[in-house]
Amino acid sequence: MTERLNQQIAFLNEADKLKTILRGTTLCDASRAENSAEHSWHLTLYALVLADQAGPEVDINRVIKMLILHDLVEIDAGDNPIFGDYDAADMEAQEQIAADRIFGLLPPDLRDDLRGIWEEFEAAESPSARFAKSLDRFQPPMQNLASGGGSWTDYNVSEAQIEEKVGRKIAIGAPALWAYARARISSFFAGADA
Amino acid sequence: MTERLNQQIAFLNEADKLKTILRGTTLCDASRAENSAEHSWHLTLYALVLADQAGPEVDINRVIKMLILHDLVEIDAGDNPIFGDYDAADMEAQEQIAADRIFGLLPPDLRDDLRGIWEEFEAAESPSARFAKSLDRFQPPMQNLASGGGSWTDYNVSEAQIEEKVGRKIAIGAPALWAYARARISSFFAGADA
Ligand SMILES: [Ca+2]
Repeated sequence: MTERLNQQIAFLNEADKLKTILRGTTLCDASRAENSAEHSWHLTLYALVLADQAGPEVDINRVIKMLILHDLVEIDAGDNPIFGDYDAADMEAQEQIAADRIFGLLPPDLRDDLRGIWEEFEAAESPSARFAKSLDRFQPPMQNLASGGGSWTDYNVSEAQIEEKVGRKIAIGAPALWAYARARISSFFAGADA
Repeated sequence: MTERLNQQIAFLNEADKLKTILRGTTLCDASRAENSAEHSWHLTLYALVLADQAGPEVDINRVIKMLILHDLVEIDAGDNPIFGDYDAADMEAQEQIAADRIFGLLPPDLRDDLRGIWEEFEAAESPSARFAKSLDRFQPPMQNLASGGGSWTDYNVSEAQIEEKVGRKIAIGAPALWAYARARISSFFAGADA
């Protein structure tokens, strides 16, 4: 019992490091970079508030669990900004090694459960995973619109690049959210979205 | 449709401010104060990892929803450190005013749903709310043990005060977690828990 709890707490203490992983996106007030732990919390709130955008096959509780876990591998592998340059296969290999180590801190039953939820998210095939991925892509543009440009300005991104890198992925799991975001992004690039 | 989404996003943007509310507890590495957004994320992970500590009447998905929402009122009302001095009735009144404003940004159906989840947490009567409250009290001692004292040192807290202010509340919803924490806290105050 104590040994099991020691393992559970060791994992939870290791997870604390996600609070120090900085993302390309800032807070809405542009005061500082967002970290991946608070981003993960924000996404779980997105899921609660935007559950009406999920298709009938989406299990919103499963979506929330995916979003809680989705960035833990960044503790070892780091965050890869959406508009940055990176090798996708190399990043995936690094994330698998990170998942082995981090989920491996848990007792085996929990390790397998939580790793399974994360793998489902990564595979982006189930309706719940697709919706979770769409929310993960939808939140940064909302932050950028609020902060007046954010990572779009930092990475000198065009409207077409947003459509390509972000829009298509949002549209897979949440088409109405992409329609909404696209309209606001167009207004922003036309200088009209305050 | 767009009007509804505008309200949902206005709420989500307002919620972003929880990332700027600082708590009495630090990160595990003692490098800085924890904010209430990343704390909320950490607690949802505690719920996933420690679900085996919940009694049979606890709905863990409901617990997770409570933990996502539980600190939002701090955007207006601030965080009240566990060992700080404050007037409980006054704080509760401030939090109700905050809840009116913040949940009031949402469309009425969502406002009522999410406010209901938060009120259930605050009432601390349902098995799910009691378990959620226990996790909220259990995480700070784990952070303090990891950082070598944290808010116990800052507030000059004794082992007896921890038992009184924290221990009894953890024990209500998660007795084995309090037994575990108490043993480690005793070792810490005896100078033995590294
Ligand atoms: Ca992410």
